[in-house]
Amino acid sequence: MEYYSKQISDLIAELSKLPGIGEKSAQRLAFHILHMNKDDVHALSNALVNARDNVRYCKECFTLTDTDLCPICSNPKRNHKQIMVVEDSRDMAAYEKTQKYEGVYHVLQGAISPMQGIGPNDIRLKELMKRLEGDVDEVIIATNSSLEGETTAMYISRLIKPTGIKCTRIASGVPVGGDLEYIDEVTLLRALEGRTQI
Amino acid sequence: MEYYSKQISDLIAELSKLPGIGEKSAQRLAFHILHMNKDDVHALSNALVNARDNVRYCKECFTLTDTDLCPICSNPKRNHKQIMVVEDSRDMAAYEKTQKYEGVYHVLQGAISPMQGIGPNDIRLKELMKRLEGDVDEVIIATNSSLEGETTAMYISRLIKPTGIKCTRIASGVPVGGDLEYIDEVTLLRALEGRTQI
Repeated sequence: MEYYSKQISDLIAELSKLPGIGEKSAQRLAFHILHMNKDDVHALSNALVNARDNVRYCKECFTLTDTDLCPICSNPKRNHKQIMVVEDSRDMAAYEKTQKYEGVYHVLQGAISPMQGIGPNDIRLKELMKRLEGDVDEVIIATNSSLEGETTAMYISRLIKPTGIKCTRIASGVPVGGDLEYIDEVTLLRALEGRTQI
Repeated sequence: MEYYSKQISDLIAELSKLPGIGEKSAQRLAFHILHMNKDDVHALSNALVNARDNVRYCKECFTLTDTDLCPICSNPKRNHKQIMVVEDSRDMAAYEKTQKYEGVYHVLQGAISPMQGIGPNDIRLKELMKRLEGDVDEVIIATNSSLEGETTAMYISRLIKPTGIKCTRIASGVPVGGDLEYIDEVTLLRALEGRTQI
């Protein structure tokens, strides 16, 4: 890219390393950044470095955070006896947006995937079992509804069974607003199996 | 976003200010960045700040660059008597990618647009006329084929006429690989008007 001067080419090259950002998008972003207020560019640059340099796993739930305990684990108003198990921090954020769940989380940082060589020891399962030695009423398994997520859910439920702690799985079925005509057969069967009395 | 710790929320907020990046994409990018190598994040952060802090207009052609003269204007192998007028630096890059044009550029940094209140004095036209006082053989007008681009091309051609310098406009017509059936009427008429003998 010798038609741009070095620092502009460098910026485009760095931006195009990000996921989902091709060369054209990187170019568009770079020129937007070059026209931004200097202070705003410094704020973005600092946000990048601060977040990356200080990020760590919450010592309780293993979500990504910049403090020893994440805001949820350190909140005394949450129900620490109810643990929802999710695959990653974004899944946790998705449930937080509902503003209805009052328990805490456990972030596995992955799911069991024999295809990708990820076994039970590669995700935060030991840490979950350790938490269950404390005072826990219920474990809600909210891994994704994918092959890996289902495998992980099954594996965890078998691990928990001997402890006697209540273990539940979030429902699988027709999404709200969904049109039966366009929904796949597996989901339709799940919805039928999971029917509840009205 | 109290479900993410402060620095992670800040990073997501800063990223979502960029064009074309909504909250979900910002979240995805942020988590990608948190999993990146620290050195790579520092490189990205430095690229942002270096490019923005050092960016300026080339004193010859007014493209964005980080040196006084851009790599093209400072290249003695280019034909400095042939000037291609474009709207912005990305248009210049588009022609540079063809690797066939050997002249230099003049970047207007915009186009005349009465609708948006951009007049001839708001773009780098005076600077172009100043360059034409030197030794110039040809001015190639390569503004976009939009209403604003055409208006600007017309305006420039009228300004240049009295100087006696050869002034050309890039051809407008059917794009290579284009299927006549799907091309708009205006383009078809332009292609007809601009027909050349074979």
